[in-house]
Amino acid sequence: MIDALTPEAIDRLLASETVARLGCHADGRTYVVPISYVYANGTMYGHMSDGMKLRMLRINPEICIEIDRVETLSRWKSVIAWGTFDELSGDAARDAAETIMRQLHPSLTGGNTTDAQIAQLVALMLSRGVVFRIALREKTGRFEEGLGAPNWLAAGGH
Amino acid sequence: MIDALTPEAIDRLLASETVARLGCHADGRTYVVPISYVYANGTMYGHMSDGMKLRMLRINPEICIEIDRVETLSRWKSVIAWGTFDELSGDAARDAAETIMRQLHPSLTGGNTTDAQIAQLVALMLSRGVVFRIALREKTGRFEEGLGAPNWLAAGGH
Repeated sequence: MIDALTPEAIDRLLASETVARLGCHADGRTYVVPISYVYANGTMYGHMSDGMKLRMLRINPEICIEIDRVETLSRWKSVIAWGTFDELSGDAARDAAETIMRQLHPSLTGGNTTDAQIAQLVALMLSRGVVFRIALREKTGRFEEGLGAPNWLAAGGH
Repeated sequence: MIDALTPEAIDRLLASETVARLGCHADGRTYVVPISYVYANGTMYGHMSDGMKLRMLRINPEICIEIDRVETLSRWKSVIAWGTFDELSGDAARDAAETIMRQLHPSLTGGNTTDAQIAQLVALMLSRGVVFRIALREKTGRFEEGLGAPNWLAAGGH
């Protein structure tokens, strides 16, 4: 059976994953792109370079985020959320870049990182592309814990 | 370094995965939702129940599809494609439902399935929700084969 995730389970999935799919729309075109992110205090933080998605997000910052963990087609969790994409600058960008680096860096290198190395990586991050924040306004979550039966046939939308 | 997938590598990723994220947009709202699918002859086939995404797709069938395989934040493949969502009916729906069941069923049950069981599952699929086809018009692919260095800092959009 497909059931709804509790608000706490939604927050746990958001906090435990590092890749989300961001959907945006501008000039009659929808775009879905994977982003890496960290989740802190109900907010997503990330970094992206210039490119099509940034041009579209500057035209229309209202976005949809999808995060999932799929073990099998009948055993999965998924969160869909809506929010606004905000480019950060100054101290807010620096603070967010440090939060991102401290949380994501272990999964990039698998090792310990000194404060000096974090500072270097933060400077690198700030020197190219943009640091962003996505405040999530509305979140829904669904899960299925099937044992192989094709319950996904019944899968409705969120 | 992030590089482009060849058209052949794009098709291989599409054929080897079973979950995609579908992005659609209607009435000022963008929606990203995971779907299970099969890929045959350059076309995606799937099944969905009634719900928000189907209502949106009937208003605006122009969609974006994202498929990825993420091993680490610096070792991943991703395909983004655009196409049109088509609901199927009659023989086309039945043929697509059979293609979907024959390809997906082993990953649902892990076992062998008789033709009679396939026919039963096809009938079940046709009795609820809709069977759809997405003809992909435009595809892009990117990959990174890093060894832990934070190359993702340089990740541009597709």
